[in-house]
Amino acid sequence: MLSTMDRKALGSVRCSVARTAAVVGDAWTMLVLRDIFRGRRRFDDLAESLGIARNVLTNRLTTLIDEEIVVRVPYREGGSRERHEYQLTEAGRDLRPVIQAMLAWGDTHRPGPGGPPVRVEHDGCGEPVRVELRCAADHLITRDEPLRSVHTGA
Amino acid sequence: MLSTMDRKALGSVRCSVARTAAVVGDAWTMLVLRDIFRGRRRFDDLAESLGIARNVLTNRLTTLIDEEIVVRVPYREGGSRERHEYQLTEAGRDLRPVIQAMLAWGDTHRPGPGGPPVRVEHDGCGEPVRVELRCAADHLITRDEPLRSVHTGA
Repeated sequence: MLSTMDRKALGSVRCSVARTAAVVGDAWTMLVLRDIFRGRRRFDDLAESLGIARNVLTNRLTTLIDEEIVVRVPYREGGSRERHEYQLTEAGRDLRPVIQAMLAWGDTHRPGPGGPPVRVEHDGCGEPVRVELRCAADHLITRDEPLRSVHTGA
Repeated sequence: MLSTMDRKALGSVRCSVARTAAVVGDAWTMLVLRDIFRGRRRFDDLAESLGIARNVLTNRLTTLIDEEIVVRVPYREGGSRERHEYQLTEAGRDLRPVIQAMLAWGDTHRPGPGGPPVRVEHDGCGEPVRVELRCAADHLITRDEPLRSVHTGA
């Protein structure tokens, strides 16, 4: 994973990709986010689902909390003792296109023997979800459509 | 970065997000890809733009070549000696939505004092590019629209 020093250095680069990479540019962090998006919110559930060491999970969750991507929220079920769950903030929920774009790439280029193991559906209509690039004039941008990066001087 | 062992382990998990994270789940790898997308293709240009140690860049490029995201292509300018440049394969070019989704998140949630430093435009019409989630019934999926992950048994 990124060292704290690298994370600080990247986070201050004048590039939004670098600033995002400073936060989520780590495989385990991405998989923690994937799991929270899929509704796993408790530490034990995440640890079991991910099959990672508890200290590694603690470390990634701490970073996500520091970056205000995730909040740790207390809750109590019936008469049982207080527990905590991890919830995505608004900034965290805005990472869905990143995770979804990764899923789409893996489905296409690393499908595994039986094809894509998970289908993400729009809950309203049951249709599968895709990621698209479009411009403000609503043109769909295909793989080899040229894009131009313009430095704004900001 | 991911160890070779972690990369192999993640790459064999039955999840397309994990398989993608095994390839690009590393901040420097993402920034190398960003630069190649923006037209930097030579080792020296990449090293200078990224400001990373040459051995780190070599390491990331080697992984990207092993994963068939990038190819190393010889070329010769005028009468000068043969040189090499790095080009994205089809699989590499399909990572654009991942990088673009990261850019969009950074623009919104880590904008920096002067706002987004780079505007990505559709080369045809000059309009800014955005990332969208849509379902096959063409519904635009907003931040808090519920999605459902269905295990296909694959």
